[in-house]
Amino acid sequence: MAEMELRVKKQASKLLALLTQQHTKQFRKNFLDMHFYEQGQFFLSLDAQQRKQLYQIMAPDEIGDMFDTLQGDEIDGSLLLGEMDLKYATDVLDSMYDDNAADLLEYLNKSEVDRYLKLMPEADANELRGLLHYDTETAGGLMTTDYVVLRQDLTVGAALKSLRKFARTAETIYYLYIVDDSNDLVGIMSLRELFTHSEKAVLNTVMAQNVISVYVDDEQEEVAQVFRDYQFVSLPVVDHAHKLVGIVTIDDVIEVIDDEAQDDYSKLAGVDVDESDTNPVKAASKRLPWLITLLFLGMITATLISHFEVLLSQASILAVFISLITGTAGNAGTQSLAVAVRRLSFGNEHTKKLFGLLSKEFITGILIGLVTGFTIFLVVGIWKHNFVLGLVIGLAMMVAIFVANLAGSLIPMLMDKLGFDPAVASGPFISTLSDLTSVLIYFNIASLFMGFFKGM
Amino acid sequence: MAEMELRVKKQASKLLALLTQQHTKQFRKNFLDMHFYEQGQFFLSLDAQQRKQLYQIMAPDEIGDMFDTLQGDEIDGSLLLGEMDLKYATDVLDSMYDDNAADLLEYLNKSEVDRYLKLMPEADANELRGLLHYDTETAGGLMTTDYVVLRQDLTVGAALKSLRKFARTAETIYYLYIVDDSNDLVGIMSLRELFTHSEKAVLNTVMAQNVISVYVDDEQEEVAQVFRDYQFVSLPVVDHAHKLVGIVTIDDVIEVIDDEAQDDYSKLAGVDVDESDTNPVKAASKRLPWLITLLFLGMITATLISHFEVLLSQASILAVFISLITGTAGNAGTQSLAVAVRRLSFGNEHTKKLFGLLSKEFITGILIGLVTGFTIFLVVGIWKHNFVLGLVIGLAMMVAIFVANLAGSLIPMLMDKLGFDPAVASGPFISTLSDLTSVLIYFNIASLFMGFFKGM
Repeated sequence: MAEMELRVKKQASKLLALLTQQHTKQFRKNFLDMHFYEQGQFFLSLDAQQRKQLYQIMAPDEIGDMFDTLQGDEIDGSLLLGEMDLKYATDVLDSMYDDNAADLLEYLNKSEVDRYLKLMPEADANELRGLLHYDTETAGGLMTTDYVVLRQDLTVGAALKSLRKFARTAETIYYLYIVDDSNDLVGIMSLRELFTHSEKAVLNTVMAQNVISVYVDDEQEEVAQVFRDYQFVSLPVVDHAHKLVGIVTIDDVIEVIDDEAQDDYSKLAGVDVDESDTNPVKAASKRLPWLITLLFLGMITATLISHFEVLLSQASILAVFISLITGTAGNAGTQSLAVAVRRLSFGNEHTKKLFGLLSKEFITGILIGLVTGFTIFLVVGIWKHNFVLGLVIGLAMMVAIFVANLAGSLIPMLMDKLGFDPAVASGPFISTLSDLTSVLIYFNIASLFMGFFKGM
Repeated sequence: MAEMELRVKKQASKLLALLTQQHTKQFRKNFLDMHFYEQGQFFLSLDAQQRKQLYQIMAPDEIGDMFDTLQGDEIDGSLLLGEMDLKYATDVLDSMYDDNAADLLEYLNKSEVDRYLKLMPEADANELRGLLHYDTETAGGLMTTDYVVLRQDLTVGAALKSLRKFARTAETIYYLYIVDDSNDLVGIMSLRELFTHSEKAVLNTVMAQNVISVYVDDEQEEVAQVFRDYQFVSLPVVDHAHKLVGIVTIDDVIEVIDDEAQDDYSKLAGVDVDESDTNPVKAASKRLPWLITLLFLGMITATLISHFEVLLSQASILAVFISLITGTAGNAGTQSLAVAVRRLSFGNEHTKKLFGLLSKEFITGILIGLVTGFTIFLVVGIWKHNFVLGLVIGLAMMVAIFVANLAGSLIPMLMDKLGFDPAVASGPFISTLSDLTSVLIYFNIASLFMGFFKGM
């Protein structure tokens, strides 16, 4: 791996020298020999002047594949396309796979988009317009319309022949989507299966008819789950009349899976972990709103404790265990939160599982509370030679853990029910909230033993 | 989507009826019409008796593909294979892709494995033995040896012909790996490119020579990263003499990406979120060790506070802000932890970035500490009409946040340096640890203002 990075780096610096020294021929050869991804990484390292040189040397369709590898959030599409002349930019867009071109155009305003689409061949422009119309986080937003579609009455031999035509434009030629006269999706076949049949066989006698497809408005997470389950590398997308409208390929799904994971992780920590730039001011300004919000939630806890100042001044020993109880309950709440969020995002039959998860967490909370409470009862009893104090701390710990545990699973469930992303309930939120409930529980239980604490 | 689940469910219950009522012929037809994944889900719902009936009806190679879809952690390979007769089990294993068969055998003890391998054709058994030899979390552990390998002096026409042979056994036929006489990997070609060349062209004149490959002992995370970057669907694996030894396919990589994300998420929450069964006793026993460990770390904090009991009894107001300070510092620490862990697991050039990340977190910590500290100074000053108290709380908050922030990025970095997974430093661990440092900071700062607090 380290070797590979070194090779790519060397290659890139050599290429940059060729570009700036205008060794056009050698540059073209080296550039075209590189993988599209490496071309993309090289491109990202160029400044505006160098990019302009590149556009002079390379034809639009020679850099289209490279643009296919660039992620929407890595580049400023409006800026890059704006640097090219209008015709060149249009040709670059036209030579990209249409799902990627649409992703790039997504960031532009409507008038900019129209300028490019007007110059494009009518059919291509219409396809792009169609794709731009879908919500980016649905199957429609992920799909491409560059796929192999064949009529069901074709023979295997004819299908093989027409694949040669598709090989230039389709995003994948390894799955053939088979439709009837009215463009209804009726079958599917892999190129591999095609190989195993006689050239004379008709497609609709050999194709698989049990086709798994997704609807154009299905959420991207659902699409990703079908890919995971069925181990597909591409998946047809249909409208609600079961007409084939596009296909989703695995490369786009991997991005979804990565983003999903990043997102869940960020939310659990209460921070956007994708702080790609290293500017501390920006980082701080991103993290502060959440911290300050929680600070005010924490202030409620402080206010609550201040109501018990009389009790505290009489029994300062109580202050010793505040952070132990709030901390432990917070940890337990974070655990049950993480389990609940994960289960809600992967579960399919919410309603059925909801009660199951809740009653499970109910019992788990009691068990964890009992064991932890009993442990701290013993520890405090022995440490302070005082088992009544141990009992108060243990009891408070038990109830606080039980409540935090339940809150950790209830809150994401409620959010889910209300149509919010359950992961919005972050770890810091649950632990700050559980500080509040824990303190309330702790001091109320301690108050019951008021007589005992007086004079301690 | 909901429709699809409903269809699968209906299908499964119909199928179960056919199985138990011994409608063999209809069962076979319906079963073979299903997708392998759906067959797998149906299979997982059967009890031992029903599974035995299935084995009687279906030939081993008819359920091999289904076994390919089952994940190692969903099933007990030893139990399932043990239920079949020896020959049948061997044939099932032999008809699976060898990477999946190896994954299944991974869970068996050596003598069990040998029983099956002895009955297998020598060549297949050797391939499996070879795969079992690799660490499961490396490229070798992910790869299959069922791929298309061709000699570089073949023509395109001859290559197309030999693909028909490979189509039965290879895991993918869409990428052709091209070797020289000594089995060195010298080129690669997609089936799609093959289509665009004349049948008479010789492979080594048309193949891509700039092949990206991974080493057999590369970590699975590195392999996944190459798939992400280059948008491959399969990737060749070579040994250190650059001999081709296998290929990794995208389906196995998606599992790696999912597991990785799950793992990071679990560690951040201090709990294994994959509590697939709903047994609360098991869940509690999995979560408790970590909670109890942190409880004892929390006890150190409590002990620390108890050293300040005299101060506390003189100024009970100090107790009011303990949970606010520990909580807020813990939240800030969790944020910087998550950013650091994420950056360490995706970064490539640790040494270069290490100092950058640290100095960034240093400044970020100061900024966050300043803003939060100043906010609480104002709030407490106004609330309690006492800006000296506000100053103590604000100062303590600032330093506590700064330290927690730094610990949140330093600890995963140290772990990484020492060769541990940085994600082992979980959110609950950092927040419990920061409770300790925050309390220490808080009471020491308060002690400096001792004279002021006396008599409050």
